[in-house]
Amino acid sequence: MGKSRLEAFSDGVIAIIITIMVLELKVPHGTSWETLGPLLPIFLSYVLSFIYVGIYWNNHHHLLHAASKVDGRVMWANLHLLFWLSLIPFVTGWMGENHYASLPVTMYGVVLLMCAIAYMVLACALSALHGKQSPLAEAMGRQGKEVYSIVLYLLAIVASAWYPWLGVGLYALVAVLWFIPDRRIARRLEH
Amino acid sequence: MGKSRLEAFSDGVIAIIITIMVLELKVPHGTSWETLGPLLPIFLSYVLSFIYVGIYWNNHHHLLHAASKVDGRVMWANLHLLFWLSLIPFVTGWMGENHYASLPVTMYGVVLLMCAIAYMVLACALSALHGKQSPLAEAMGRQGKEVYSIVLYLLAIVASAWYPWLGVGLYALVAVLWFIPDRRIARRLEH
Amino acid sequence: MGKSRLEAFSDGVIAIIITIMVLELKVPHGTSWETLGPLLPIFLSYVLSFIYVGIYWNNHHHLLHAASKVDGRVMWANLHLLFWLSLIPFVTGWMGENHYASLPVTMYGVVLLMCAIAYMVLACALSALHGKQSPLAEAMGRQGKEVYSIVLYLLAIVASAWYPWLGVGLYALVAVLWFIPDRRIARRLEH
Amino acid sequence: MGKSRLEAFSDGVIAIIITIMVLELKVPHGTSWETLGPLLPIFLSYVLSFIYVGIYWNNHHHLLHAASKVDGRVMWANLHLLFWLSLIPFVTGWMGENHYASLPVTMYGVVLLMCAIAYMVLACALSALHGKQSPLAEAMGRQGKEVYSIVLYLLAIVASAWYPWLGVGLYALVAVLWFIPDRRIARRLEH
Repeated sequence: MGKSRLEAFSDGVIAIIITIMVLELKVPHGTSWETLGPLLPIFLSYVLSFIYVGIYWNNHHHLLHAASKVDGRVMWANLHLLFWLSLIPFVTGWMGENHYASLPVTMYGVVLLMCAIAYMVLACALSALHGKQSPLAEAMGRQGKEVYSIVLYLLAIVASAWYPWLGVGLYALVAVLWFIPDRRIARRLEH
Repeated sequence: MGKSRLEAFSDGVIAIIITIMVLELKVPHGTSWETLGPLLPIFLSYVLSFIYVGIYWNNHHHLLHAASKVDGRVMWANLHLLFWLSLIPFVTGWMGENHYASLPVTMYGVVLLMCAIAYMVLACALSALHGKQSPLAEAMGRQGKEVYSIVLYLLAIVASAWYPWLGVGLYALVAVLWFIPDRRIARRLEH
Repeated sequence: MGKSRLEAFSDGVIAIIITIMVLELKVPHGTSWETLGPLLPIFLSYVLSFIYVGIYWNNHHHLLHAASKVDGRVMWANLHLLFWLSLIPFVTGWMGENHYASLPVTMYGVVLLMCAIAYMVLACALSALHGKQSPLAEAMGRQGKEVYSIVLYLLAIVASAWYPWLGVGLYALVAVLWFIPDRRIARRLEH
Repeated sequence: MGKSRLEAFSDGVIAIIITIMVLELKVPHGTSWETLGPLLPIFLSYVLSFIYVGIYWNNHHHLLHAASKVDGRVMWANLHLLFWLSLIPFVTGWMGENHYASLPVTMYGVVLLMCAIAYMVLACALSALHGKQSPLAEAMGRQGKEVYSIVLYLLAIVASAWYPWLGVGLYALVAVLWFIPDRRIARRLEH
């Protein structure tokens, strides 16, 4: 069973997710700088989520690049990941419009946590399909980073109850952690 | 006539359908748990529809994987299926926002029924094009399951007039029926 | 210059156009049959436009299937066609929400007319690129049908000023005309 | 690392951007010519942005056509470009709904400026990856035009503070400049 349609469908869904978030940036009534003020927190949460969805697309690309086949379990694991990613626009808008209040920041973290778990499930499904000696399973050896991310998400979810900005800071930190090593892995693959 | 653009177009439309449903989850005003309460039924109907659209994408993938060519009739049968699938976001939102009231649950079933019929029509068009000895026509041998689904949809549509939750339960049952054997077929194809 | 990305991009845009039209079918407040009543004209205009966009996708598919290359002029002719197609959701919603009043029906026809002209321009750009002896230019020989359509659109636009329903009927007639021969051409290509 | 998924994902995002802009053309209440009047400036800004996004898609197509590989840096440079392009629908709607008032016109220019810079960054990332002797780096020799555009954007941003229409005129001028030579380059590539 070929992987090309799975990639094409995932590309389509992720492309829509990353783009419909901008619809939360509602065109304001008025033409002064003041009318842009209330949009700033929405814009910032859009930037953060754009980077997160970009990271997921990048990682999804690498993961499936290493895969040579897919089965029904992989397809559903992939749809499961897309499901949680599809909730990012909702929590992004909710967090941004409420100026990073406690509960929306917590729920943003819950969705990120579920995305991370869903990504691990997808990676495991692919790993199980390709066998333990496959290059894909080897690349999975670095699952440690996913575990760190999940711990940081859990910390952020708890912290958000008292210090929402600490939660947002931790989400940004995880994004930075993923953003940097991404290049490193790509380089390692070249060697 | 190649099937790749038909697949690409269908992937695009199904990707958009599965993603715009989440737009019905409108960002609430307020940051307490209470503001999330009214979203729960909408969320649950979103989950059910996401699974349904996922099942259709999966089956569509398998069906066209088995096909080697398409013609004008297949193209229109495919557009016919996409038409009914495109109504799923509407009935999903209507059912969820009205807390599974009788008529919206009925209409949800009518749209699912039409999707199932449209899928059978597409399968028949492909089967007619490839001939009775083709692997595709053989795979069609299991149309029995589609017939069971249609009977269950009809039951659910009738039941919804008095017990909407029974209707919803039957829709969920059909989803589970499709979800499980999907893997079994994929495995059978591997052998 | 390859045509695959032009096809992929057009597929994406047409898939979005055909799907966002359904967003005009706003989820109604209420759960009785009466709440569905006002949606009926919007639904009917959605059906008509879905068929039209489906016809354009089909024809676009055939046209580019016959093409072997594209250039900058073809790209812009293609974007020009996509521009007019992108206005179909707007006039569809306007016509449906105003119960087929005179001016919206006229504007619907104007957009259809511009789509037909843009399609002819794209066909000519491809024809000029491939030369007069190409199979593509031969297939263009049947441009007569496009001319008939344009005459019917013009008639419908004029008629809509007094009898909007006559205009709608003419639009439906053109859709039927395109829907039927489409199969015939596909069969002729097979021989 | 293949470039096909990067192209497919970019096609998807750009297709969505170019299409959701039309959602700002809200279906008016009323059926007279007067109800269309307030939509005219929104329509005109839609036309301008459609041409701009079309230009970016065209140039993106040419740029990646000349590329033979991508790396992590190119992926992020590409996402960076898509980010700024995704803000075009917002500033298009804001500019159109406020009848080309000073600040919205300025912000429209800022987004165009950031798109142009992001495009140059992407071109440089690709150029660095392919080496100085590559055909891609040679094609980059014409970066001069990008610099002219950036100067014109800066002029337009400053001018918009006093004469918004001069700013709009300069944006249109840049669009015309890119529209024309595009063909010339394609022809040069053919030789």
